[in-house]
Amino acid sequence: MSNTFGTLFRLTSFGESHGAAVGGIVDGCPSRIPLDEAMVQRQLNRRRPGQSAVTTPRQEADRVRLLSGWSEGVTLGTPIGFSIENTDLRPGDYREALGAPRPSHADYTYRVKYGVAAASGGGRASARETAARVVGGAIAEAFLGPRYGIAITAWTSRVGGAEAPDLLATGFTRDDVDATPVRCPDAKAAEAMVREIEAARADGDSIGGVVTCVCRHVPAGWGEPVFDKASALLAHAMLSLPACKGVEIGSGFGAAAMRGSAHNDAFVRRPDGSLGTGTNRSGGVQGGITNGEPIWFRVAFKPTATIAKPQASVDYEGRDISVASKGRHDPCVVPRAVPVVEAMTALVLADLALLSEVHAARLL
Amino acid sequence: MSNTFGTLFRLTSFGESHGAAVGGIVDGCPSRIPLDEAMVQRQLNRRRPGQSAVTTPRQEADRVRLLSGWSEGVTLGTPIGFSIENTDLRPGDYREALGAPRPSHADYTYRVKYGVAAASGGGRASARETAARVVGGAIAEAFLGPRYGIAITAWTSRVGGAEAPDLLATGFTRDDVDATPVRCPDAKAAEAMVREIEAARADGDSIGGVVTCVCRHVPAGWGEPVFDKASALLAHAMLSLPACKGVEIGSGFGAAAMRGSAHNDAFVRRPDGSLGTGTNRSGGVQGGITNGEPIWFRVAFKPTATIAKPQASVDYEGRDISVASKGRHDPCVVPRAVPVVEAMTALVLADLALLSEVHAARLL
Amino acid sequence: MSNTFGTLFRLTSFGESHGAAVGGIVDGCPSRIPLDEAMVQRQLNRRRPGQSAVTTPRQEADRVRLLSGWSEGVTLGTPIGFSIENTDLRPGDYREALGAPRPSHADYTYRVKYGVAAASGGGRASARETAARVVGGAIAEAFLGPRYGIAITAWTSRVGGAEAPDLLATGFTRDDVDATPVRCPDAKAAEAMVREIEAARADGDSIGGVVTCVCRHVPAGWGEPVFDKASALLAHAMLSLPACKGVEIGSGFGAAAMRGSAHNDAFVRRPDGSLGTGTNRSGGVQGGITNGEPIWFRVAFKPTATIAKPQASVDYEGRDISVASKGRHDPCVVPRAVPVVEAMTALVLADLALLSEVHAARLL
Amino acid sequence: MSNTFGTLFRLTSFGESHGAAVGGIVDGCPSRIPLDEAMVQRQLNRRRPGQSAVTTPRQEADRVRLLSGWSEGVTLGTPIGFSIENTDLRPGDYREALGAPRPSHADYTYRVKYGVAAASGGGRASARETAARVVGGAIAEAFLGPRYGIAITAWTSRVGGAEAPDLLATGFTRDDVDATPVRCPDAKAAEAMVREIEAARADGDSIGGVVTCVCRHVPAGWGEPVFDKASALLAHAMLSLPACKGVEIGSGFGAAAMRGSAHNDAFVRRPDGSLGTGTNRSGGVQGGITNGEPIWFRVAFKPTATIAKPQASVDYEGRDISVASKGRHDPCVVPRAVPVVEAMTALVLADLALLSEVHAARLL
Repeated sequence: MSNTFGTLFRLTSFGESHGAAVGGIVDGCPSRIPLDEAMVQRQLNRRRPGQSAVTTPRQEADRVRLLSGWSEGVTLGTPIGFSIENTDLRPGDYREALGAPRPSHADYTYRVKYGVAAASGGGRASARETAARVVGGAIAEAFLGPRYGIAITAWTSRVGGAEAPDLLATGFTRDDVDATPVRCPDAKAAEAMVREIEAARADGDSIGGVVTCVCRHVPAGWGEPVFDKASALLAHAMLSLPACKGVEIGSGFGAAAMRGSAHNDAFVRRPDGSLGTGTNRSGGVQGGITNGEPIWFRVAFKPTATIAKPQASVDYEGRDISVASKGRHDPCVVPRAVPVVEAMTALVLADLALLSEVHAARLL
Repeated sequence: MSNTFGTLFRLTSFGESHGAAVGGIVDGCPSRIPLDEAMVQRQLNRRRPGQSAVTTPRQEADRVRLLSGWSEGVTLGTPIGFSIENTDLRPGDYREALGAPRPSHADYTYRVKYGVAAASGGGRASARETAARVVGGAIAEAFLGPRYGIAITAWTSRVGGAEAPDLLATGFTRDDVDATPVRCPDAKAAEAMVREIEAARADGDSIGGVVTCVCRHVPAGWGEPVFDKASALLAHAMLSLPACKGVEIGSGFGAAAMRGSAHNDAFVRRPDGSLGTGTNRSGGVQGGITNGEPIWFRVAFKPTATIAKPQASVDYEGRDISVASKGRHDPCVVPRAVPVVEAMTALVLADLALLSEVHAARLL
Repeated sequence: MSNTFGTLFRLTSFGESHGAAVGGIVDGCPSRIPLDEAMVQRQLNRRRPGQSAVTTPRQEADRVRLLSGWSEGVTLGTPIGFSIENTDLRPGDYREALGAPRPSHADYTYRVKYGVAAASGGGRASARETAARVVGGAIAEAFLGPRYGIAITAWTSRVGGAEAPDLLATGFTRDDVDATPVRCPDAKAAEAMVREIEAARADGDSIGGVVTCVCRHVPAGWGEPVFDKASALLAHAMLSLPACKGVEIGSGFGAAAMRGSAHNDAFVRRPDGSLGTGTNRSGGVQGGITNGEPIWFRVAFKPTATIAKPQASVDYEGRDISVASKGRHDPCVVPRAVPVVEAMTALVLADLALLSEVHAARLL
Repeated sequence: MSNTFGTLFRLTSFGESHGAAVGGIVDGCPSRIPLDEAMVQRQLNRRRPGQSAVTTPRQEADRVRLLSGWSEGVTLGTPIGFSIENTDLRPGDYREALGAPRPSHADYTYRVKYGVAAASGGGRASARETAARVVGGAIAEAFLGPRYGIAITAWTSRVGGAEAPDLLATGFTRDDVDATPVRCPDAKAAEAMVREIEAARADGDSIGGVVTCVCRHVPAGWGEPVFDKASALLAHAMLSLPACKGVEIGSGFGAAAMRGSAHNDAFVRRPDGSLGTGTNRSGGVQGGITNGEPIWFRVAFKPTATIAKPQASVDYEGRDISVASKGRHDPCVVPRAVPVVEAMTALVLADLALLSEVHAARLL
């Protein structure tokens, strides 16, 4: 199942970073959903490298082509195949990895697992595979938005020592997020983040960070106990991302220091008569099932492993060497991870939506 | 798939907290593995309530019965069915939940999802379902231990404000862990944790905490890119646990503040000629695949939602009420979560082991 | 996945023929479906050995116990665990299989696959495992009947040379089917079938046969193109049964000799204005999707492999031997296969129903 | 799961008959397997329309492009994406289906299920989707051939009233099969089959048939009890093919008329000391597990539903109409179904092979 994600709304992806193309198949998307290539391209453009001074100068047109499953602007209910040709190939940039494993990269583990020399550019471990996730997520959003009104918004909440204030209650859009090069809608924090990235780049180094994501208007009742809790699927989705080191939902690790009386979200009656909670430390999920409050969670990313600064390491023969990358890499993956986090979130929610339709039908 | 976990080594579980029994089926366990009920019972006993002054006084004999899949002390390769009868039923303790949802519990979401009044005792959302996980994990360990020499050890590393020092490099056993009532092998930290729990209990309150887990002797090459990375499956497993709010592997959220040159794990040559890493911020997983170093991760648990202290909330009709539980609940789930974290880890590793056998075979 | 059947409505089963118990878990059954043990026991009784002169004299009380997932006469939406204790154990009957593989039985292949001596009584290959299927099917019918009005009826349509006339258009019930010891509602054919079985038994031999099954009131639109066509899932289900050698839907192998103009089912307008077909060579499935006409198919069963008559064979060392069973076996599995065919059909339809609810929801 | 086939060796396919492309992803193929586009193209060419006088004159270049998962002539262990552009589009040929459902075609059921007007050319129900199966099967064979020496050969054994003699014991190759336009290696039977097809075509009609398939050198021990028996997976695979109406393995429906003493396959000692069976009515599978004998089975196909001959039917409004196709269709699908049957067989065996590697590893 390694290259398939989801139970009913499923993305299967393919593609090495420097092969002919990356792409995938979305299976399970309902029929009669408005969809065209422009809708998908828009989100894909947000992941593209070379967008700003703080990202890699590698240029990829990243044109998505939807090969099936839609006709005349709507989905058919059949699988949606898609591909994105790889155009800016420079395998030479990556040849250095063949003789020695890059520290904290996947060269060594892929070689152990597959018995093949690390393919140029890290092969399947490259962040390039996330392009297929973004396409899948855009299709998922084409379903989630019109049908449920769900809005998923992620942003950079931390880069190195620069941290944004709590923005959960703030109303902002993806356009607001995109207004700063680091994708942090708080202008002041964004400036500090840019400085962190520029300083790291100047040192031939890289820097880590955190993405926060909030999902509004998710109906109550989604999530499949016990093993496929909404929170568990989101955690699975996030930790499947390159460079991700942790995830916390709602109160997260902060909950470890709290007492129940301070942590519990008391129920309140909403104006429409339905039940809500006055606080949202649960992060919108209780017992693994959504409760109608916004879902929110934070995702930690490590600093990019490939850096220009020389590092002492050993080669495959165990000889001491110095490793220094000449490739084109982002000093901080976090700004470009923002649309990828949104995409994986959309895939999880679309899957839970379909599973929930089953339950809803049962209750008629 | 909600009640099944795993691809090749699979646990499917059943059972409400106050129904006739909890149990499950382990499918995919290799044949000819030494197994008997005593091996499983030993780990199940560690999860049992009523073990110490800091846990719930609810008494459950929790006798597991292995109904199939083994004969004369070894597994047959066929599914292993098992059941644990529920014996200490007091549905009355939970009746209060029928009229109003307990804050931060699953009463409300289960009712929305399934359209049934919250079954007595929280039904499937009760921590009682974790007994089946522990049985599954014990069977997984019966496979992982003899075949690969894998040792999984978890402990309580934090309760409220009491935190244990970094114990990763320390050699200790499950017996050492069990030597303190909170399952923290550092005696001084354990005392502080006990005080946190006793103070919370005295206030009719509860307290959160963190479990740290380390897996030694896991071979390099396990984990299925891209969506079923070892780290992603562990995150899925942990967030599927009741009360879990976050997970971080290796450097975790700390990585967000670090630079690549400080975070990267340089390769070194081990005495046996193989490659290792001098540090282990990767947490034993690189590119989603194990690298032969110890896997380690931390799991955050919120304070128990059900507390004796009265809380202001509303009932299903939206009327203001005061909620105060009379049930028997742990003021802190963390000590009893330790064997459950180990069990889920074992299930993940057993699944990755079998998937890895496929790969290993390919390389012959 | 070997011991799990289904995608959303799933049966996972366990149990060797002569171990402690057989049983399973039904996961995915909707909540609020009327269910109790008596409903399940009724169908299980139809599978029980020792019911008539033409079946094995082995006696099994076969009492099913539903361990979870229901309360006060309705399902909870949570997994339904169940077990059936094995009571009439005579392992000695089967010991003969340890030194030599019984011809056309699974002794040899299980030994090759699992590396264990054939467990007493054939272990998991015994028809005893079908008891769990019947329980799963009865639960599926509890859902399919009230919700959709679906009626599944199977009968013995052939035993050896005795074949029933075409009964598809005949209105008869399960009671009519059960009225004859061979479960053929045509009295005259039933008599000929009994004679076939008695003659085989008298010779220490066994005899094959065919079960025909019809499903009425299945809504149009069920079935998942392209790989999980309704017909494909039914074929999978049937060929997973012990002793099954073939399946054909609608015109089946007869279609090979026909022309399109004679085979095609022309559409007609039904009295209620909907479309139907005047003939039903499609067997109720077109392009893998149900069309609202009755689904019908035929299932071929080989003669029981274990016979009293001595057969020349070789043992595991390759030495010539004569094999003759002293165990208690049905000379013809077909009459008892009837409720098992119904059960697997119900499991397939319940799964397709839930998958279809997803589609139906999409079209609102 | 509808567009994914397999557990470990998995094909996910996409593509409408008259959209931009058909294609798919093979996930789970081992690394370091020799593979290039020519190997795949060779088998794909055998499925191509327009090959002989007895097939449709529709011309498709059907050039496969392998987009990922291989490099320098070997597989990488990563998913293999592929696409085949659709080039000979004539949507107008199919427009007639929009107002009325073609009898015994999938127009009506797709419309009920997906709520979209039947896409031009039958959309996903078209036999064109089988091109992706053939690519998947060719990749599976690239694995099965070199590693296990498995040879899969299918041929046309019946067309209408023309039936080939029993050819199981005959040694012939795919070249021999391809030597006749109907893919029957028996020259005399092939002539009769051609006459059946020509006669049907002359009448504006179509004709059904049977494909027989044999798999040699499959190791003993493959197949996953109880629900994923080798025979069950093959049946699933075959009934998932367009126009398939039945499958029988080994003795098949003939077993229904036999006695056990005549049906059982006695064991014999092979020259190499291993056990075999003197006869092979089991079809190479016992208890759902391969026994090392050739696997053989027969697959029934109905006559093509779309015929030129006018048929009385009704349109979607229930009005009487006469339907007569002007599209380009094979009067008999069977000759072109031969490589598709081989492909699905290869996919099943590759999946069982990988599952079996797990078991084999267990027994070391």
